[in-house]
Amino acid sequence: MPLSSRHLLGLQGVSKEDIQLILDTANTFKEVLARPIKKVPTLQGKTIVNLFYESSTRTRISFELAEKRLSADTINFSLSASSVKKGESLKDTVKNIEAMKIDMIIIRHSAAGTPFYLTKICDANIINAGDGTHEHPTQALLDIYSILEKFGKLEGLKVCIVGDISHSRVALSNIFGLKTMGVKVSVCGPSTMIPRQIEELGVDVIYNIDEAIQENDILNVLRIQLEREAGENFPSLREYAKYFGITKERLDKNGKEILILHPGPINRGVEISSEVADGSDQIILDQVTNGVAIRMAVLYLLGTLN
Amino acid sequence: MPLSSRHLLGLQGVSKEDIQLILDTANTFKEVLARPIKKVPTLQGKTIVNLFYESSTRTRISFELAEKRLSADTINFSLSASSVKKGESLKDTVKNIEAMKIDMIIIRHSAAGTPFYLTKICDANIINAGDGTHEHPTQALLDIYSILEKFGKLEGLKVCIVGDISHSRVALSNIFGLKTMGVKVSVCGPSTMIPRQIEELGVDVIYNIDEAIQENDILNVLRIQLEREAGENFPSLREYAKYFGITKERLDKNGKEILILHPGPINRGVEISSEVADGSDQIILDQVTNGVAIRMAVLYLLGTLN
Amino acid sequence: MPLSSRHLLGLQGVSKEDIQLILDTANTFKEVLARPIKKVPTLQGKTIVNLFYESSTRTRISFELAEKRLSADTINFSLSASSVKKGESLKDTVKNIEAMKIDMIIIRHSAAGTPFYLTKICDANIINAGDGTHEHPTQALLDIYSILEKFGKLEGLKVCIVGDISHSRVALSNIFGLKTMGVKVSVCGPSTMIPRQIEELGVDVIYNIDEAIQENDILNVLRIQLEREAGENFPSLREYAKYFGITKERLDKNGKEILILHPGPINRGVEISSEVADGSDQIILDQVTNGVAIRMAVLYLLGTLN
Repeated sequence: MPLSSRHLLGLQGVSKEDIQLILDTANTFKEVLARPIKKVPTLQGKTIVNLFYESSTRTRISFELAEKRLSADTINFSLSASSVKKGESLKDTVKNIEAMKIDMIIIRHSAAGTPFYLTKICDANIINAGDGTHEHPTQALLDIYSILEKFGKLEGLKVCIVGDISHSRVALSNIFGLKTMGVKVSVCGPSTMIPRQIEELGVDVIYNIDEAIQENDILNVLRIQLEREAGENFPSLREYAKYFGITKERLDKNGKEILILHPGPINRGVEISSEVADGSDQIILDQVTNGVAIRMAVLYLLGTLN
Repeated sequence: MPLSSRHLLGLQGVSKEDIQLILDTANTFKEVLARPIKKVPTLQGKTIVNLFYESSTRTRISFELAEKRLSADTINFSLSASSVKKGESLKDTVKNIEAMKIDMIIIRHSAAGTPFYLTKICDANIINAGDGTHEHPTQALLDIYSILEKFGKLEGLKVCIVGDISHSRVALSNIFGLKTMGVKVSVCGPSTMIPRQIEELGVDVIYNIDEAIQENDILNVLRIQLEREAGENFPSLREYAKYFGITKERLDKNGKEILILHPGPINRGVEISSEVADGSDQIILDQVTNGVAIRMAVLYLLGTLN
Repeated sequence: MPLSSRHLLGLQGVSKEDIQLILDTANTFKEVLARPIKKVPTLQGKTIVNLFYESSTRTRISFELAEKRLSADTINFSLSASSVKKGESLKDTVKNIEAMKIDMIIIRHSAAGTPFYLTKICDANIINAGDGTHEHPTQALLDIYSILEKFGKLEGLKVCIVGDISHSRVALSNIFGLKTMGVKVSVCGPSTMIPRQIEELGVDVIYNIDEAIQENDILNVLRIQLEREAGENFPSLREYAKYFGITKERLDKNGKEILILHPGPINRGVEISSEVADGSDQIILDQVTNGVAIRMAVLYLLGTLN
């Protein structure tokens, strides 16, 4: 059974069957990652372009490793590339890359909707690696996979996403994906960071972090964008840490086991304390491993569809 | 029958037989590019260094894809590389790279003659990817291939190269290559952009673009270097566009079918209008595809010669 | 017989047997480098990360070529990478990279001890590609290999390292490695560039370059860090060149054959004259070739140990 789409633009509107297929396929690739030889010949002779208009390390490397482990050829094309500097439009850049006969484009761009636009102007499979504040579907899929791996199920679980929900593509993709899989989703953060109509997505809003801990099985703690936030959406990082930071004291006070996810990179001492981030119960590094497996699964499913 | 040279430094002095061999070989690789698996093992175990002292996206990626599809290992070495910053001479850099036992160097450099110099100091096959205002042979070869593909012949065709002929290595390589293949070549542009002795190369000069359209089968429209030109060789970009820009109105007015090539990246609305650039009759994106095939052909012919 | 360590952090404390094993293995790979197909499948399916926090060209390319010729997959992660800019700690960066299931990390960092630190926080094999002023073991190994290749033995030879000994990781690694192999080591340079307790390492100090030439079989001439040195440790580059620069006149005056090594990149006319650097007796480019063979040997020995 193949995926029902040639692209992965977001999790909004993606069916439960498609998400389940990606999760099941990722399971196979997680086994491959545990072998001494982590490589399979599946995408040999395919060319994948990593087109990153926003700088990124971990997402780009995670995709690049996934591509290489499927034996694809990879081309990296970054922000600072020359044609972009020469003022060439995104459309011309993409049409040109496509004309070189490539099979798949992984696109990160600050403008929401860019991956969708690419599907209209070229024939390659498009995977969204983050578009503005819109979606970041592979991040949400790896979060969901990590939860499933830990709990053995998704249906009926309760997840709260904590942080700057308004500016987070990770939050939005998680909301769509988790709800499709039968998870109850809430969000928690300062009121300045919660979009007004979020409840229309079927999401509860919690303004108190202790309440969020009490009522959920999992917290997905978002990275605070240090450069953007301080002095704008809240008075100071210290204040954010005081009211919303996840510390051992806060968890102990609530006397409750809870699984903590974080998409990284971590701001230690801001949204999460080092003690919690490095705690043995947490799965932040499992998420990173699962990210490679999820991306191998998506690349495999889209790359063998054609 | 092998090529008669171990290097591709330019098209000046390259025989008709050698150019024909490259065009014929590119034909084979164009078929490879149409397959689901676009890779052949021809250059497995060979190492090719892309030594780009000028920034470039499309030419570098085109070469890199050609190399990977021939299964060569590739090393990218760019302008910003550390040894260059540390003040190491080009000679020392190249001698060092050669000592690492590499097979081929693709060189782009702002100084005309650099590729020739490399043939004197090292044993690798050298391919010129653009040297100052001198030559850019693979660009001209892909232009010639694209014309041949469209017309089924070269002999007797009439091509006019439009733009800043004085500063264009694309123009010069095209002039040499086209004339060798029996094509009648003219150039068109503001008098400030036409070198004085160009007619000595057997090229006609046309100062009126409508006349150029009337008298030719093909226009090869060069990119105007925005950063260099405005206010220097002509009063303004608007003025250039008015007198030399290729627009639908101008083509319609001349009432004549003409094939339009452009090496890219395009300055839409300057040397060519969007309507023309995106027109279904044009082959600007075919040129990009053909560029990969031509580079695979050149790499193959030089790489298997040794 | 495998190496006795899973990592290569430096040559201090590395046994004669281990060094000999690396040198012998490099011999095999030097033969591979002389073949038309310079590639072996030894590390297929392994992933090696080149984690360079200091810019580097030749060391990074040398490692990258060694990795590719062993058929490993390589990931380059440089200083300018985004997570580093976002303020992520080295520890978090490395833990994340490790979680992506990589096998080996090649690390260059300005802080001495960084490679050792990595062995404490992750399971990958760690190879030091230069840490501050501490060690640069593969450079010393390739120097030792180059000497052995020229003289057919090491025991009893006399090597003098010339230059800024205080700030040189190349000097320190050479001292440890050479002494272990039975070579008599001295250092030569301005008194401001010789560390006070260097003699405790069993090394003679010579302040006169002519004396150094007279008493040794080999000079290893270090690169003067132009940006750091001038006006700090000596009055001027001209003065350094006058008193310590290796010129043909100086060698002729001493009337003695001596082998000259240099780790590159060369400052022509400062620590060494062009005439000497390019002289047919010297082996500076052999060192570069041997560097690839040594790195293949180290990667092979560590990568097949697990």
